[in-house]
Amino acid sequence: MIIDIHGHYTTTPPQVSDFRQRQIEQFQRDGTVLQHPPEVSDAEIRAGIEPNQLARMKERGVDLTVFSPKAVGMDHHQGNEATNVVWARYCNDLIHRVCKLYPRQFAGVGMLPQAAGVAPRGAVIDELRRCVLEMGFVGVNLNPDPSGGRWSDPPLWDKDWWYPLYEQLVELEVPAMIHVSGSCNPHFNAVATHYINGDTTAFVQCLMSDIFRDFPTLKFVLPHGGGAAPYHWGRYRGMAQDMGLPTLEEKLLGNLFFDTCVYHQPGIDLLLSVVPPDNVLFASETFGAVNGVDPRTGHHYDHTRRYIEASPAADAQMRQRLYRDNALGVYPRLRPICG
Amino acid sequence: MIIDIHGHYTTTPPQVSDFRQRQIEQFQRDGTVLQHPPEVSDAEIRAGIEPNQLARMKERGVDLTVFSPKAVGMDHHQGNEATNVVWARYCNDLIHRVCKLYPRQFAGVGMLPQAAGVAPRGAVIDELRRCVLEMGFVGVNLNPDPSGGRWSDPPLWDKDWWYPLYEQLVELEVPAMIHVSGSCNPHFNAVATHYINGDTTAFVQCLMSDIFRDFPTLKFVLPHGGGAAPYHWGRYRGMAQDMGLPTLEEKLLGNLFFDTCVYHQPGIDLLLSVVPPDNVLFASETFGAVNGVDPRTGHHYDHTRRYIEASPAADAQMRQRLYRDNALGVYPRLRPICG
Repeated sequence: MIIDIHGHYTTTPPQVSDFRQRQIEQFQRDGTVLQHPPEVSDAEIRAGIEPNQLARMKERGVDLTVFSPKAVGMDHHQGNEATNVVWARYCNDLIHRVCKLYPRQFAGVGMLPQAAGVAPRGAVIDELRRCVLEMGFVGVNLNPDPSGGRWSDPPLWDKDWWYPLYEQLVELEVPAMIHVSGSCNPHFNAVATHYINGDTTAFVQCLMSDIFRDFPTLKFVLPHGGGAAPYHWGRYRGMAQDMGLPTLEEKLLGNLFFDTCVYHQPGIDLLLSVVPPDNVLFASETFGAVNGVDPRTGHHYDHTRRYIEASPAADAQMRQRLYRDNALGVYPRLRPICG
Repeated sequence: MIIDIHGHYTTTPPQVSDFRQRQIEQFQRDGTVLQHPPEVSDAEIRAGIEPNQLARMKERGVDLTVFSPKAVGMDHHQGNEATNVVWARYCNDLIHRVCKLYPRQFAGVGMLPQAAGVAPRGAVIDELRRCVLEMGFVGVNLNPDPSGGRWSDPPLWDKDWWYPLYEQLVELEVPAMIHVSGSCNPHFNAVATHYINGDTTAFVQCLMSDIFRDFPTLKFVLPHGGGAAPYHWGRYRGMAQDMGLPTLEEKLLGNLFFDTCVYHQPGIDLLLSVVPPDNVLFASETFGAVNGVDPRTGHHYDHTRRYIEASPAADAQMRQRLYRDNALGVYPRLRPICG
């Protein structure tokens, strides 16, 4: 069995993103909150999913995708908490619909109604609980920078800001993928820069704080192969040592996991040779950042399974952990879905 | 001959950083500019350099270091342009003193008196010209985020903001290392996060803009192995392709170069297997980010020459390019110094 832990619903019908656009325009115009997003039919969902995500999964031998709303569409830096509650509920409901239509192929991960400048409290926790307890979601995406590239809210180690949310994650036994969304800072292209910088930033915040001492069972997943962290593993090992911290293994690796969304062979080889095999989870983020076919290989850049199969750093036993066992460990709520 | 293109003067005597601290305190108190930094004797310079940088160079067989003021000390987000002119001139004069004391071992690279919110014009260009024309410096460090982690000034592709400075770099035939300084944003540890994110950010800004079309002979060096870029080379190749851009080779690699400040074997192996050999320059940033000895190898993390010697991705001819030839190509003003 092969589980891809990082897929986004990037193929919604046009009325979905249109609604968000109208909602933001109205909010900017008069500060009011557009409710009642448009209907999406089962046929529209099937038309988006079947020729795209499902077809790609079959082609690549992926059995199940852990599926969440489009990351760049979470859009927490726009609107306010009230608009973002409407938007998050709508997007999460659509994920739930996909999971009900294809219960063996998709497991849900929710987005949270975060908003720039607003501590994640009642509304965020309510939506988290609704996702997990009412809709059977197995995890959640947490945006470490709801200000969208301004990085103006508190870092992940801020106890007052973030710890109440972490308490809920622990209680519900769901991991958080630490995934930024769009960028309103012209320095940062969202998918090319902000995503990767967000991963690296989260890694160092975990390394240089006590989050995992304070929440020993909390689990974070870093997307995009952990940003720059594995490439600079020696730098981080050395800095931890210079600072008198425990090793990366002791400090982080009981709680922090890396996906395999790295789109070339040398990157996957490095990831698999540097990060211990229990801390890597198979993922491709299809359809996500990169859609093209690599002329050097004749295959899609994001066909990460090919790199894993070809990597001298992974044997059959390790691949089984990446493809399945680690996912069931990090996402305990996946276990009943996978029978 | 082995040239290390990335060393910082991190061993100045205490009155140097004390001066900057007093200067900033006075500026914050009453907005005035402390002038007249304290003297540093030749003996003090020797006492900082000989048992540290020079000893390490001898130990590792490095003949010449391209040497610039301490990066985290450039400190552009503090003070204003007037304080920063005094500070940059002081720091650059000290680099010049080092180069005069050890003319065969050090070549100078300057810091610029950038300041948050101030376009790099007269004062910055004056100091650049002084460094190159009066003191024989071979390059300059350019801070892409003088706001220190706020990223609130314009990106590198902003024509009005940056192009007058690029015109000077081209005219003087000196490359710029794109190197951030300290961070006043609590999200970003300066050396662990901000440096690496700064490199990745600069890479994407070059990829998604016309800087090198507009300045075909401009040369930028990305420190710290290019941040996350080589690890995500497939992502960037694929994104360029999806966006209809030229390949990374065509778009960037006539102008953009990567140093080897990556502190473990798998990272260097990846860098050397992904980035073409003409675009990699040997560097270790000693004494810089990481000072310790790796217990797994018994050698300093930042002894990057060991990784290059051990890498299956580099043969003797390639090492000669990394160690010397590429440096002389990117830094033409190094040629007379190297005889």
